[in-house]
Amino acid sequence: MKVLVINAGSSSIKYQLFDMIHESVLASGRVERIGMDSSIVTHEPADKEEVVEVKEILDHVAGVKRVIEMLTHEEYGVVKSMSEIDAVGHRIVHGGETFKNSVIVTDEVKSEIKRLFELAPLHNPAHMMGILAVEANLPNVPQAVVFDTAFHQTMPKSSYLYAIPKTLYKKHKVRRYGFHGTSHAYVSDVAAKTLGKDLAALKMITCHIGNGGSLTAILNGESFDTSMGMTPLEGLMMGTRSGDLDPAIVPFVMNKEELTLNEVNSMLNKHSGLLAVSGLSSDMREITDAMADNEDAKLAFDMYVYRVKKYIGSYAAAMNGLDVVVFTAGVGENSVVLRQSVCEGLTFLGIEIDEELNKIRSKEPRVISSANSKVTVMVVPTNEELLIARDTYNLVK
Amino acid sequence: MKVLVINAGSSSIKYQLFDMIHESVLASGRVERIGMDSSIVTHEPADKEEVVEVKEILDHVAGVKRVIEMLTHEEYGVVKSMSEIDAVGHRIVHGGETFKNSVIVTDEVKSEIKRLFELAPLHNPAHMMGILAVEANLPNVPQAVVFDTAFHQTMPKSSYLYAIPKTLYKKHKVRRYGFHGTSHAYVSDVAAKTLGKDLAALKMITCHIGNGGSLTAILNGESFDTSMGMTPLEGLMMGTRSGDLDPAIVPFVMNKEELTLNEVNSMLNKHSGLLAVSGLSSDMREITDAMADNEDAKLAFDMYVYRVKKYIGSYAAAMNGLDVVVFTAGVGENSVVLRQSVCEGLTFLGIEIDEELNKIRSKEPRVISSANSKVTVMVVPTNEELLIARDTYNLVK
Repeated sequence: MKVLVINAGSSSIKYQLFDMIHESVLASGRVERIGMDSSIVTHEPADKEEVVEVKEILDHVAGVKRVIEMLTHEEYGVVKSMSEIDAVGHRIVHGGETFKNSVIVTDEVKSEIKRLFELAPLHNPAHMMGILAVEANLPNVPQAVVFDTAFHQTMPKSSYLYAIPKTLYKKHKVRRYGFHGTSHAYVSDVAAKTLGKDLAALKMITCHIGNGGSLTAILNGESFDTSMGMTPLEGLMMGTRSGDLDPAIVPFVMNKEELTLNEVNSMLNKHSGLLAVSGLSSDMREITDAMADNEDAKLAFDMYVYRVKKYIGSYAAAMNGLDVVVFTAGVGENSVVLRQSVCEGLTFLGIEIDEELNKIRSKEPRVISSANSKVTVMVVPTNEELLIARDTYNLVK
Repeated sequence: MKVLVINAGSSSIKYQLFDMIHESVLASGRVERIGMDSSIVTHEPADKEEVVEVKEILDHVAGVKRVIEMLTHEEYGVVKSMSEIDAVGHRIVHGGETFKNSVIVTDEVKSEIKRLFELAPLHNPAHMMGILAVEANLPNVPQAVVFDTAFHQTMPKSSYLYAIPKTLYKKHKVRRYGFHGTSHAYVSDVAAKTLGKDLAALKMITCHIGNGGSLTAILNGESFDTSMGMTPLEGLMMGTRSGDLDPAIVPFVMNKEELTLNEVNSMLNKHSGLLAVSGLSSDMREITDAMADNEDAKLAFDMYVYRVKKYIGSYAAAMNGLDVVVFTAGVGENSVVLRQSVCEGLTFLGIEIDEELNKIRSKEPRVISSANSKVTVMVVPTNEELLIARDTYNLVK
């Protein structure tokens, strides 16, 4: 069985085709700049050369058409015909309170995703274009949707409610949803299996730290609390997002700088975080490369690490204990110095990192704490696409 | 030497007269509803009956005049003439980055407090009215100012900076200041002395939990981090304040509910917190009394406790360890069930509360953890007025 995983943005489509027998990737790629002068299609078949073409692609329907042409192409295709694609799985950012699991796409599901546009105005409409474009191109292929929020639907009220007037929850569904759920679910599962332990018996904190970042407290195998909130702005300091902030700063700055609602959102989401503090870059690699001689880069790094440490302490308190910490995603998987700095400041929790193990680069899940460490610290490469493919496969088979 | 402590609000003046030899309170009281139809003066001499009078008091100058008349009154006064008042100390909410300590009032100090109006538009102008009213009534008496923010000026940059564009700090001084500094300073000092230990050698978290609330991480005897931010809105859930919130909720709600900047500030500061979640009260006593049969009151309590626990975990991580937790202020000193609930969930830190010690009511500083507890948990009644009197005395003598 072959499953196509689609992640549709407002002007892009990313894809991966999985063979589910070995859970192997047959091809991956992306269509970028959809609807602009010249779109770019990048196709990477597993065992052949990468193909890049510049082409006019006016909408998502044309984009998905080109993806299928690439996948079935005589020369650089990986399947003979589109009839070999048995199912399509979509990544959807926001599932609100409706979707606690992945589901098969039906008319009802589509209506509900539309209803959630207002909670994720930048993402859900683009995902819907992806679903409709697949429907237009592959009318008989079943589709499934996998939500970034679904894993966190197990949070108790005291984690997900804000202490604001109830009417805001009732009328506008203002609450903590959390994101990166697919990643937190995937790495927590892999971590427990790698340790040969039952996830439900572990108190675990998964640190998904990439350009965006969130930490999740996992208790009894379920998300108990997570650092992103109603939107991905809350929580950790990120590449270009501020993370936590005195909420009174928002009206204060709007007033002083005469900003509109959109402008203040843009400031906090796109012009803050590592980028703002370092004045240099939103990319942790550039920050750590520069920080030996650049005070602002060092400050940005210190603030970033400090907030990760505080959240780990806070979630250890939330669960009254801690057995496993997992680092994942771009920064979490690759920044030796970030992991080192976070763990060095948490010896009081019984965390003892092994400096040599921490330095090893590998694509395998691995333990980086010492044998004496009371808390097991791991690096587990995430694979959200694989989890989307698995969920889709399980729903369709 | 006698010191008068003044806490001036926009329509009120609270006062206490201290004899500094024994640090005893000779009289305390308040003038309320200044500038309204009928003002109320409540005067409580230490060894005489309380006096309450309804009177027209048009401004702060008239208010301070009446306070002095009360203090020197033939029948219910406590000093013979106002010449016995050697100094006046004022509580000032916001000292910005200028004031790292208490200071004697000079023209320069007054200008600087005025310059800080924009950071504390509700409080600093009222305090200034208090200073000018004392000046008008007692022109030859030295005055000192004691700032709620001063104790937190030791925080490192990684604690006090937000991850937002630098220009906001440079132009508008947007940063974490923290409040309740006088209380955190006072109780941390008393706690260390009660234990017979050097404060500088302890990792301490002071929990000032009243109608407003903040936690402070105290490292090397200095404030290292604190939960209130640029304003008192950030941090814990409070009586009517939301505390921490996804900052993106502010523009989202402003848009959906068509709120002005003032309205959203008012919503988050005055109509949120315990009051909003319980739908019942902003007063923790009413919440805990009701929670056995009232789900919303129970939820409000659980959310409140959960956030205190998370901050304790977070600050233990910030300091990489924890020796002493101190509870103070209205709720912290009086709510047995709050302290019990917070500590029960933190046994992983080595906290073990003694249920019997926790139940004892007393005005003395005391330990409530068991002999085996790795972390010493204490209740220390706060006394901000005494610290203001002491600072004033030390500056003036």
